[in-house]
Amino acid sequence: MTVIPEPSVPSLQTAVPGPLTNAAKSELDVVFDARTTQMVIDYDKSSGNYLVDIDGNTYLDVYAQIASIPVGYNNPTLVKAAQSPAMVSALVNRPAIGNFPSQQWLGLLRDGLMRAAPSGCTQVFTAQSGSEANELAFKAAFMAYRRKQRGDAPWSELEQESVMKNQAPGSPDLAILSFKNSFHGRGFASLSATRSKPVHKIDIPSFKWPQASFPQLKYPLEEHEQENRREEERCLQEIEHIVDSWHCPVAGIIVEPIQSEGGDNHASPEFFQGLQAITKARGVCLIVDEVQTGFGGTGKFWGHEHWNLSAPADIVTFSKKAQTAGYFFSDSSLRPDKAYRQFNTWMGDAARIIMSNAVIDEILNESLVESTARVGDILYERLAGLAAKYPEFIQNLRGKGKGTYLAFDTPDSSALLKEMRSLGINIGSCGIATIRLRPMLIFQERHISPLVEAFEKAFAKLGRP
Amino acid sequence: MTVIPEPSVPSLQTAVPGPLTNAAKSELDVVFDARTTQMVIDYDKSSGNYLVDIDGNTYLDVYAQIASIPVGYNNPTLVKAAQSPAMVSALVNRPAIGNFPSQQWLGLLRDGLMRAAPSGCTQVFTAQSGSEANELAFKAAFMAYRRKQRGDAPWSELEQESVMKNQAPGSPDLAILSFKNSFHGRGFASLSATRSKPVHKIDIPSFKWPQASFPQLKYPLEEHEQENRREEERCLQEIEHIVDSWHCPVAGIIVEPIQSEGGDNHASPEFFQGLQAITKARGVCLIVDEVQTGFGGTGKFWGHEHWNLSAPADIVTFSKKAQTAGYFFSDSSLRPDKAYRQFNTWMGDAARIIMSNAVIDEILNESLVESTARVGDILYERLAGLAAKYPEFIQNLRGKGKGTYLAFDTPDSSALLKEMRSLGINIGSCGIATIRLRPMLIFQERHISPLVEAFEKAFAKLGRP
Repeated sequence: MTVIPEPSVPSLQTAVPGPLTNAAKSELDVVFDARTTQMVIDYDKSSGNYLVDIDGNTYLDVYAQIASIPVGYNNPTLVKAAQSPAMVSALVNRPAIGNFPSQQWLGLLRDGLMRAAPSGCTQVFTAQSGSEANELAFKAAFMAYRRKQRGDAPWSELEQESVMKNQAPGSPDLAILSFKNSFHGRGFASLSATRSKPVHKIDIPSFKWPQASFPQLKYPLEEHEQENRREEERCLQEIEHIVDSWHCPVAGIIVEPIQSEGGDNHASPEFFQGLQAITKARGVCLIVDEVQTGFGGTGKFWGHEHWNLSAPADIVTFSKKAQTAGYFFSDSSLRPDKAYRQFNTWMGDAARIIMSNAVIDEILNESLVESTARVGDILYERLAGLAAKYPEFIQNLRGKGKGTYLAFDTPDSSALLKEMRSLGINIGSCGIATIRLRPMLIFQERHISPLVEAFEKAFAKLGRP
Repeated sequence: MTVIPEPSVPSLQTAVPGPLTNAAKSELDVVFDARTTQMVIDYDKSSGNYLVDIDGNTYLDVYAQIASIPVGYNNPTLVKAAQSPAMVSALVNRPAIGNFPSQQWLGLLRDGLMRAAPSGCTQVFTAQSGSEANELAFKAAFMAYRRKQRGDAPWSELEQESVMKNQAPGSPDLAILSFKNSFHGRGFASLSATRSKPVHKIDIPSFKWPQASFPQLKYPLEEHEQENRREEERCLQEIEHIVDSWHCPVAGIIVEPIQSEGGDNHASPEFFQGLQAITKARGVCLIVDEVQTGFGGTGKFWGHEHWNLSAPADIVTFSKKAQTAGYFFSDSSLRPDKAYRQFNTWMGDAARIIMSNAVIDEILNESLVESTARVGDILYERLAGLAAKYPEFIQNLRGKGKGTYLAFDTPDSSALLKEMRSLGINIGSCGIATIRLRPMLIFQERHISPLVEAFEKAFAKLGRP
C-alpha cells in the first residue's frame, strides 16, 4: 500500500452531499438504514487529517468518525499492523478468548494494551464497544457491591431460584447514578444511564436509576469563580442526597471527564475530587467513562488525569480512539469472586487490540499527547481571538488547557455545521447548540489556519444571527 | 502463510492442561481474569478441525470456540480475505458506519452478507456480538410496538420529558418474553431474557420480564409422539396466557430454534408454527435467536428453516459462525420511524463482515450446509449405535435430521468432558448433564471414527456410573 501524502487544504468538487453520495445512499438504503449517511467515503484516497468522499471532495476532518480515528487515515504504522501475520491469525482464528486464548494474548495485553492503563489500574477486561465496556463495568460494580453485603456466604437457594425469575434477592434492585446530559451508550443499561436526548431513549424500557445535576459552569471561568464553585458544591450535595435517599442502593456512579454528546460540559478538578470522596465514603464504585475523552485528545492520555485525584478511579472504560474497547481496574474485589460471572464468547477482538497497540505505539513514539496539548493551546488562543471578533457566533468557548478538546456554543449549530462542510471542514456538534472539535492526535499547527479561515467564511455567509 | 495440512488423529504430549498452559495461565491471570482458561492455543499450528495447544497437544475440536469457528482453523479462503487490501483499509480506517460508510460498504452487505439473509428478510442491521444483536432486536420490537400504538402522532412533551427521567410514558413498561432454559446473551436486557444458570445472572438487576415453559420432549421421539404433542400444546397455552395476562404489554418473544446453552432442547415444527400464530394474532414481534444455530450447523443454513413457517420470522439475529453479528428483518415497520433511533458509533465492524463474506463464499462454494446435513445423519447413526451399547452413558440422544447439531445426556458431563479432552477431543457441555457436539461445517466422515473411538475409551475409563 502506497502512502498517500496528506492534502494541504480542503477542496470541494461538488455540492455537499454530492451526487455520487446521494446515489450510493439510495442504493444502500434498500438493505441498510442509510438515513444517517452524511457522505460515502473513499477511504483509500483519504490521508492523515483529510477525508475524501466518492464525489472527490476533500475535507479537513476535525470530527474524526465521532471522535474515534486516533492517528489519521491510512496511518502507515497501522497499515503495517493490519498486514502483520499476527493480524491474519487473529482475524481467521477468532477464539473464545476466555477459554482458549492464543499464545499471543498475554503479550497483547501485558506488553501492549496495559501500557495505556491509567495510574493504579493493574487489570483489564476486554470488550467490543463503549456501551459494552460501560455495561461490563456496571456488572462489576453490582457484583462487588453484593459481595460486600454477602461476605463469604455462598449464594442462598432463594437467591438462585429467584434470579431465574428476574426477582429479588437473586436479581436485586441496585442502581447506577449518572448525570444529566451524560452519554454512556445505547445498550439497555448504558442507555438507562444516558441522559442526552429523547431520540436516544424514547420507547425503550429503562432501569429506574437516578440522575444528578452536572455543574453548569459559566464562562469565561476566571470571571465566574465563586458562582461556579457554588454550582459545583450544589451538585455534590445533590449527589450525596440522592445516594443517601434513593429507593435502592446506588452501587456505582458513572461520569465522563467532559460530558461530550451532552454539550461538552466541563467541571473543575475540585468537583471530581469531591465526587470521589463521596463514592469512597459510601462504598460506591466510581466508573470513569473515558470512551470519548481517553487516548490523548484532552492533552493528557486520560481525561481524568486533569483531576489530580489522590487515589485511582475504581474503573476506567475506553473505546473509540483506542480502536477496541474494555475497562481497566485495580481493586481485586472488582474481579468477580467466581469464574464465568463476567464472561462471553468472544470477550473482545484480538484483531482490534492489535490495532490498538499500533495506536499506542504511534502515540508514544510520536509524543502525540504532548503535541495535542501544545497544538490545543494554540488552537484555543486562535478561537478565543475569533470569539472576540465574532461574539454573536462563538459563546462559552471552553476546553482551555485540555488539548484540542474544544467547544463553543453558537446560535444555530446545524446551520454552521452545514456551512463548514460546504467549505471542506467535516466538523461535529453536540448538546443543543454546541460545536465540538474532535480532531485527531495528529492535528498540527498547520491545520489550524484552514479551520479558522473556514469559520470566518462561514460566519460571513451566515450573516448576523 | 503456508497451509498446514490437517492432522489425521488427535495426539497428546502432556497431561491436559499441560505445564506450558498452566504457566501461561498464571502469567495472564495477573492482568486478565484467566480462571476460565482451558488451554492456551498455538493457532498458527492449528488446522482445519484440529486445535494445537502450546504444550503440543493436538485435539479434534468439536466445540469450535463455543460453536463459532465455521470453516476450520487457518482456512485458506479466510486467510486470503484477511490479507486483502479491503481488509487493511477496514482495519485502519474504521468508520462511523452510520454517518460515513466506505464505498465498499454497500457491496459488503448487498452482494455479501445479504446472501445469508433468511427467506423473506430484506434488510440487515449490523452489530458486534450476539448479545448486542439481540438487544438491538429488542429495541426494534419496542419501537415498532409503540409506533403501532402512537400511529402518526408526534412524541408528546410528556413523553420527551419523562423519558429523560427513565419514567413512563416516554420509557414505557414493555416486556420481552423468553423461555425457561434459554440463553440470549449477557447484556442487561439480553440477560433478563436469559434463563440458563444462576452464575450468569446473580447480583445483576434485571427487567421484570416473563418466562414461559419450553417443551420438554421425551426421547426417542417416535415412542412419545402423543405425550410430546400434549407437552407442546401445554407450552403454547402457557405462552398465550402470559402474553394476555402479563402486567405490561409483551412486545416481543425471543426463541432459539434449539435451546443450546440450556441443554440442547428441541421442539417440533408444529410448536414453532403455533408460536408464530400466537405472535401474529397479538401483534407481538417474533425474534428468532440464531446466534448459535445459524450458518449451517443444523444441516440447513438457518435453524428455523426446519419449521416450515408460512410467513417469514420478524427478526433473525446472528453471530458466532457468522464471525460478525447483527439481525435481519423484512417488515419496514421494524425500521424505526426516525433516523438515529437505532444508531451507535461503529454499528458493527466492516473487517469482521469481510470475514463473514469469506465464510459465506466457503459455505456456498463447498456446499457445506449440504455436507453438514449428510455427515450429521451418519454421525447420528454412529451415536445411536453407541447409545444402544452404552445406555448408561448416552441418554436422550437428540438432533436427528439436524446436521451435526447433536447432543445427549450423560450422568456426569464434566467428568466425560475432561476424559475426552485427555483423549484429544475438545468437546463442550451444556445444560445440567448434556454433551453437545458443535463441530465445524468442515467436519467430515473421516472425523467420526476418532470421535466415536474416544467416546468408547472414555466410557471404559469412567466405568459404570
